[in-house]
Parts: sequence; C-alpha cells; structure tokens
Amino acid sequence: MTDLLARAHALDAADPLALFRERFVIGDETLVYLDGNSLGRLPLATRDRLRQAIEVEWGEELIRGWARWIDLAREAGDVLATGVLGVAPGEVVLSDSTSVNIYKLAAAALEARPGRTVIVTDDDNFPTDRYVLAGLARARGGELRVVRTDVNAGIDADTVRAALDERVALLSLSHVAYRSGAVADMVGLTEAAHDAGALVLWDLCHSAGAVPTPLAAAGADLAVGCTYKYLNAGPGAPAFLYVREDLQSTLHQPIWGWFSQRDQFAMGESYDPVDDIGRFLVGTPPVLGGYAALEGARLTAEAGIEAIAAKGARLTSYAIELFDAWLARYGLTLASPRDARHRGAHVTLHHARAWQICQAWQAAKVIPDFRTPDRVRIGPAPLYTRFVEVYEAFDRLRQIMDSGEYERFTVERARVT
Amino acid sequence: MTDLLARAHALDAADPLALFRERFVIGDETLVYLDGNSLGRLPLATRDRLRQAIEVEWGEELIRGWARWIDLAREAGDVLATGVLGVAPGEVVLSDSTSVNIYKLAAAALEARPGRTVIVTDDDNFPTDRYVLAGLARARGGELRVVRTDVNAGIDADTVRAALDERVALLSLSHVAYRSGAVADMVGLTEAAHDAGALVLWDLCHSAGAVPTPLAAAGADLAVGCTYKYLNAGPGAPAFLYVREDLQSTLHQPIWGWFSQRDQFAMGESYDPVDDIGRFLVGTPPVLGGYAALEGARLTAEAGIEAIAAKGARLTSYAIELFDAWLARYGLTLASPRDARHRGAHVTLHHARAWQICQAWQAAKVIPDFRTPDRVRIGPAPLYTRFVEVYEAFDRLRQIMDSGEYERFTVERARVT
Repeated sequence: MTDLLARAHALDAADPLALFRERFVIGDETLVYLDGNSLGRLPLATRDRLRQAIEVEWGEELIRGWARWIDLAREAGDVLATGVLGVAPGEVVLSDSTSVNIYKLAAAALEARPGRTVIVTDDDNFPTDRYVLAGLARARGGELRVVRTDVNAGIDADTVRAALDERVALLSLSHVAYRSGAVADMVGLTEAAHDAGALVLWDLCHSAGAVPTPLAAAGADLAVGCTYKYLNAGPGAPAFLYVREDLQSTLHQPIWGWFSQRDQFAMGESYDPVDDIGRFLVGTPPVLGGYAALEGARLTAEAGIEAIAAKGARLTSYAIELFDAWLARYGLTLASPRDARHRGAHVTLHHARAWQICQAWQAAKVIPDFRTPDRVRIGPAPLYTRFVEVYEAFDRLRQIMDSGEYERFTVERARVT
Repeated sequence: MTDLLARAHALDAADPLALFRERFVIGDETLVYLDGNSLGRLPLATRDRLRQAIEVEWGEELIRGWARWIDLAREAGDVLATGVLGVAPGEVVLSDSTSVNIYKLAAAALEARPGRTVIVTDDDNFPTDRYVLAGLARARGGELRVVRTDVNAGIDADTVRAALDERVALLSLSHVAYRSGAVADMVGLTEAAHDAGALVLWDLCHSAGAVPTPLAAAGADLAVGCTYKYLNAGPGAPAFLYVREDLQSTLHQPIWGWFSQRDQFAMGESYDPVDDIGRFLVGTPPVLGGYAALEGARLTAEAGIEAIAAKGARLTSYAIELFDAWLARYGLTLASPRDARHRGAHVTLHHARAWQICQAWQAAKVIPDFRTPDRVRIGPAPLYTRFVEVYEAFDRLRQIMDSGEYERFTVERARVT
C-alpha cells in the first residue's frame, strides 16, 4: 500500500462522521461522487419521509394534511437556524428559490435605505445573484457596482471596502465562492458595509451545511441559500432566507403573497403582513421539498457543522496533497485557496481542457463538476465521502492525465453542465 | 331505492370517465372527498413516477439527472398548453408559485404600458391576487382599482367595463371564482380590456383541469394557475404561467434569474434572457413537483377537458338537485350560479353556521371546504368523484341538518381552513 493510500485509510478510520455514510442511499459503490456541492445525495430518512408524505399524507389524508404542512417552512427554518446556521429560531424560513429570495430581500434592503441606489457585488458572484441584483438596480434607477475578484483566490476585502460609500444601500456577496471555494470574511465585510450605512445580503448556497456561517457574530442583516447542495434536500428543493430578528418587522418585501398575511385564511380585504419571518413568505409552499429540506437540515444538525467543516477541510487538504503529488505535472493548477481556513468544502482545478477531462473522469466512474470554461470542481461532501474515495478518484484522474486519454472526448459541451 | 339514488347510479353507469377513478390512490372508500378543488388526489402514475424520481434518479443517477430535469418545466408546460389549456406548445411553462407568477407577469404588463398606472381587479378575486397586485401598484406609484363583484353570482361584465379607461395598464381577474365557482366571460372581458388598450392576466387556478379555458379564442395576453387542484400535482406543486407567443420576446419580467438566461451554463457576465417562454423562468425549479405536474397534466389531457367539464357540470347539477330536494329547508342557500354554463366544477352553499356544518360533515366522513365566514364549498372533482358519492355526502348532510347535530361542534375556527 502506498503512503498516500495508507493515509486515506487512516483518515477514514479516525473519521468521527464515518457512520453518516450509512444514512444515505449510495447505490453503485464503485462510483465516486464528487459533486455533492451541486446536488447532495438522498438521505434514507428523506426517502422514507417522502414515501410517507406522498402515499399516506397526500394520498389518504388529503387536504387534512395542511394542518401539518402549513408549519413546514418555519419548522425546517428553525432547524436550519439553530442546527446549521448558528442563528436564533424564527430568523430563518424556507421559501421560493434562491433567486426569488435574493430579489425579495434586496428589494426590501433598497427600500430600507432611501436616497441610496447602489448595490455592490463582485464579478465572481454566482450568475443568478448578479443578474437579479442588476435587474433590481435598473428597475429602481440605481446602479450595480461590480468589483473585481480573483477567481482563484476569492474576494479581496480591501477592494470591496473601497467600493462602499454613502450611495450604497446593499452589499451582496457569496460567503463561499462557487468556483474557487474561497471563504469571504463575513464578519469584516459586514462591519465595513454597516460602517458605510449599507445593509448586507449573504448568499450561503456553497456554505450552508459545509462550513460555519458567522451570521450572528457578524450581525449580518440578510442571507439566502439553497438546500439541494450540502443540505441534501434534492433537486430543486426550496431555498431558505434569513432576516435578523430586529429587522423583520421593519422591512417590506415586494411580493405581497397570501402566505405572509396575518390570519391568512380570513382572506381579508387588504394586505397586512405578519411581523416575523413569515413576512418574507409569498405563495403556497412546496410540501415535498419542505420535508426534504427538514430532513436534510436535521441530518446536518445531528452531525454538527463544526465536525462537518473539519472533515471538509481534511478531505480537501487530502485532495490537494494528491494533486501536488500526482497532477501538477500535467498542466493542472490549483484554482482554490491552499489554506484550509480560507476554503469551503470544495476545491477546483484549472486546465484548458477541463471539459474533456471531466468527461473522461466521468467515463472512469468519478463524477466531478465542470465549471465553464476551464475548471474542474471537486466537492467531496463530508457527510458521505470517504478519504479512500478521494484517493481512488485522483488515482483514476492520474491515469487519465498520464495517458492523455481525455483528448479522445468531445470538446463540444453539453447543454447542461 | 329512491329516485335520486337511482339517478346517481344511472349517471355513474353512463359516465365516460368512470374508469379514471382507478387511476388514483383512493384509500378509505367510505370517505367522500369533495375538496379536489383545493387539493386533488394522488394519481397512481404520479406515485410511481415520484418513487422513480426520488429513489433512482436522485438517489442513484445523482447530478446526471439534470440532463433530464432541465426540460421538465417546458415539457409539463407543453402538455398543459395543448392538452389542458387549448393554447400552443411553447406558450406555457411551470414556474414558481401562482403568487410569484402574478407578480412577474403583472410587473411585465405595467412596464409594457408606459404612462398607464392602473390595475383593475375585483373584490371577489382570490386574496393573493389582490395583495400582489396592490403591492405592485403601490410600488409603481399606481393604483389598484377594485370593482365590486356579487360573491354568489360572479363578475359583472358591465361593472368591469366601466372601470376600464385610458389609465388602465392591466385587467387581472380569476376565470372561475374561488368561492361561487362563477365563470367569467373571458372572451368578452379580454376584448373590453384590449379595446381600452390594456393587457389582461387571467388566474386559472379554479378552471385549469376543470373547464375549458378560452385563452386562444379570447386572444388573452397572460395567465397563471396552480397545479395542485384539478391537475392533481400534490401539495405546493409548482404553478404555471402562460404568455401569448407574440408577446414573449417583448415583455420584461422583473426577477432576472439564471433559468431565463440564454446559454445558462455559460454563466455569462450580463443578463441576456431567451426570447421564448423560458424568459419567465427564474431560479432552479422543483423537480419532484415538476414531475407531479407533468403526470397530472397528462392524465387530464388523456381524459379530455371537454369530457371533464361535461362531467363537472353533471356532478354539480346533481348536487344542486339534492340541495333543492333536501337542504333548502334548513337555512342553507345556494351561493353559486344555477346555470351550469356559468359555473366551474364546484358549488358553494351559504349558512351562518358554515364552519360548524363543515366540522360535522367531516365527522361524518365527508370532506368539504370551508370558505370564511359562512360558506361550504363542494368540489366533486370529475376525474375521480362518483355520483353515488355525491348522493351519500348529501344524505349525510341532510341528517346533520335535520338533527341539528352540527351545533355540537365548536364555533372556534381552525388556524388552517
């Protein structure tokens, strides 16, 4: 056994989260799944809960199920708040998609800062964030100020600070960068925004369930995130939103749907929203996705975000160790921070032929994630990924690079990447 | 056997849709479900499809499932378009909730009519419609003009016409009223709006899958609707939206999410939406709900909307026959149009003690729908409701009214009604 493989076995043997793998549907044990940061695996509890929800609650209890379902968005929100995001019950709720939540909260922030019309974000922020913010800025006669971020190193705090002035209503950034995995300084940047009189909106899609989110320590105002990545709630499961408790009754979100209405089923004449986190709900919520988010959040909370983050750091550090030993010679470069303290739970490699490499790797039964135009993203989700799997995946990649066999794969990209 | 019961048996025997009941999970055969207009039953095909989607596609295919899932919103939209709503493929797509869709389309309509700031609706429109439109009107410095509608008889076309002038950008109404079931004159009112230079947005929540929706004949501009009522897609399944083909490339919806982006996975710098119905998508769509909407739409399309509407008329006419014969004497009054041509697939009864009556009826294993403050709504969904069930339900209600036993039930209303 090589030293590197022995290290993988030792790391697995010492892994306090090792048994959590048994809580998921695994299927083909020879497939190495390194894309838990795009779509997490199916927890057994979720499979069972969804069967019950579909076949018994919907199928037989029918409309009476709503007595239970009506609270799902808040119930899952509370588990996320206390067990995953480190904030208080009542500060998080499931609602809509991440994109719609960005719109609602950013619009509320603009209204809360009259006379200020600028939103600041960075050019490495996830596309939907940038697009939604751009649309809002334009509709409100404002400006989206987009600062430069190094796509490998992450947000430069000084560059962001320099963009904050008295015209800025909102600073909106991702906590963990979707390409590099770089972690932004949430505490420092929130303070800088507040010093400038602006509100902050953090996108937690790549951090919720992967690393601690210091929303409370930062005094962050607003946040959004998805549940289908590290929270394992399934494809298109509902997103969540966070609004700091003292802000809830003062903010006004723009989509006045009936699920935010006080005494909703009184069907009153005028819109009169509740004062709490329910104020940011809109329409009838998806029940199946709600259950999946609840179960996924519970599993993460049970494992503990600190333990998950520690294992994530070990997994990605080990991946970098393998990269250094085997892959740097083939023109692959590390496109993520080397320091685990500045990294989320994924690492990214850069190569001009990244798309072909991803295809070849997949043919060798390893599933990475391609990020256009030249990046291979690797997300060994801590709850179910073993160190020996990372070894096995990198060993297969070494063979692919050494033989040059990736050149056989098409350069034409799939429509969905 | 009484004449009325014999008629139920005869109607069932002659029912061309009778076999569709076998396509649904029924569970307790002694329970009479008259709330398919709030939450439709679970189709067997949907149960099987969801098992497959959860346990195989998500559980084992993992991220690779998106190659299939990415088209679900359009695929289901096309089945809805051609098989349910009578419009062209490419004119309908699944997206978000009904409330969010109203917001997106109404905002787009306001932008398309510069200089006009008034939205017209009616006071019997569903609450979320009125609230969302009120919020938009206020945000845009406009006005929501709310006309009076008779809660039993439905929209008065002349009253609506009188509210349409050169300041009106949008007329937004429900096709079938959620309380009375009255059908609005979609063709005539759309023409009146167009004559006034306004666009129209129809809410089809209570008509999609229940009655034909003459969007094409009317030349209607915009529509929204839910899939969890007559389309049987389950609690909180995604809503749909319709935009007439020639309008699609000219309208601008306000929430610039990445699912409307041209070449989405290129993750481009600027928002550049597609020109077709995908322009009205926003964030990552719910896959489980998408499958359920697809299967529900297929089942409706297979039965045929004309056959469904015809059975709906027979079911509600038969219910009114039983009401006339048995219930009018107990202070219950009909709160729906008597003429089946002016009625959707539900009927409503009025009584000051409606809440207690609903509780008593439920205790007798009949599930109606309470509508505040004094209405019992009865939705015998045509795809799975038998005439003998309507007989049985009304027979139990007759006993409840005759004995006065409903007075034993609490007057305090449940939080969810």
